Amino acid sequence: MIQSFNSSLLENAVAELSKLPGIGRKTALRLALHMLRREESEAVALGESIITMRKNIAYCSRCHNISEQEVCPICNDSRRDSSTVCVVENVKDVITIESTHQHSGLYHVLGGVISPLDGISPADLEIDSLIKRVTEENLKEVILALSPTIEGDTTNFYIYRKLADLPVRVTMLARGLSIGNELEYTDELTLGKSIQNRVLFTSTFSKH
Amino acid sequence: MIQSFNSSLLENAVAELSKLPGIGRKTALRLALHMLRREESEAVALGESIITMRKNIAYCSRCHNISEQEVCPICNDSRRDSSTVCVVENVKDVITIESTHQHSGLYHVLGGVISPLDGISPADLEIDSLIKRVTEENLKEVILALSPTIEGDTTNFYIYRKLADLPVRVTMLARGLSIGNELEYTDELTLGKSIQNRVLFTSTFSKH
Repeated sequence: MIQSFNSSLLENAVAELSKLPGIGRKTALRLALHMLRREESEAVALGESIITMRKNIAYCSRCHNISEQEVCPICNDSRRDSSTVCVVENVKDVITIESTHQHSGLYHVLGGVISPLDGISPADLEIDSLIKRVTEENLKEVILALSPTIEGDTTNFYIYRKLADLPVRVTMLARGLSIGNELEYTDELTLGKSIQNRVLFTSTFSKH
Repeated sequence: MIQSFNSSLLENAVAELSKLPGIGRKTALRLALHMLRREESEAVALGESIITMRKNIAYCSRCHNISEQEVCPICNDSRRDSSTVCVVENVKDVITIESTHQHSGLYHVLGGVISPLDGISPADLEIDSLIKRVTEENLKEVILALSPTIEGDTTNFYIYRKLADLPVRVTMLARGLSIGNELEYTDELTLGKSIQNRVLFTSTFSKH
């Protein structure tokens, strides 16, 4: 039911807020009324942070991660191993992998995964630019770090085939038990993979 | 876990967004990345709508509802019955009651309910200004429309006592069965009230 707010300004803010994913009209109204109760400076800070962010953040021309400059800080970091590139679906996955501190190479953000149902074909993704990087930057290793879903696996396989003739090592993230999970609650597919891909016990002592 | 975003602008927008109620850091990041994927004009429209709303909406000096002018459109509407005032907890309740189209009088927004646990005393609410309105505006009826909670009932009773000596009719919203609910799932207190306050069957035909 559409409710009238007796204020076009409130109406407008609610309409804009409810365009955000996961935010309906009721939540949007709750957020707007919250802002009205707080200091004006808070609403101004929020509004300006959104506008400034959107106006100044673009995408890195090399890895397609978000960046305030032409090339992002990760690509520009000379301490990182520029011969290893980790392929991820989106910007959020870069943040997630960075938080593990286990990848010292660069990234390549595809912008999605192949998904015919959603109308996403290889041409919609940054796959050609990845192939180009492998050749031009003489990459030694490409780590496929897509989600272990049908779409992710399809994309992994597509990229693997495209890279097959190039002198580059193609690896993918290990699948196995989640740390902290009970064995009996692990699904059979994952458990089976973790047996196939078992590792020497001593290897868990060596730091990667 | 605090993740680093490699962008102070993104960091800033996420920090501001996560100040909103019910929005954590993860949701804030999801919203920010969504805005980065969409057109710049959308983010600008959202940001500006928030700032404009906060800068231009104030509170009606008469009923304390939100208003873009000194006095709100409801108070200014000469077609409404200015001798009947509906007392509500907050601005949202005005919108909710307006959407029923059953109240043709004015409003008085208390700004909360008496709640000693939350440190809200009668002095923090617009109760004195309500008493003043009853006298100055010669009100005929005050409809108490607070939530049927302990705090709401306490506030109802407090206002009722304050108005006891004034020549004004004090009414409150009916409590009874929710339309569409099964009888067996109605709590006993509500069911009991609905028996005490039963109405003539023929009265359901007459329009209020």
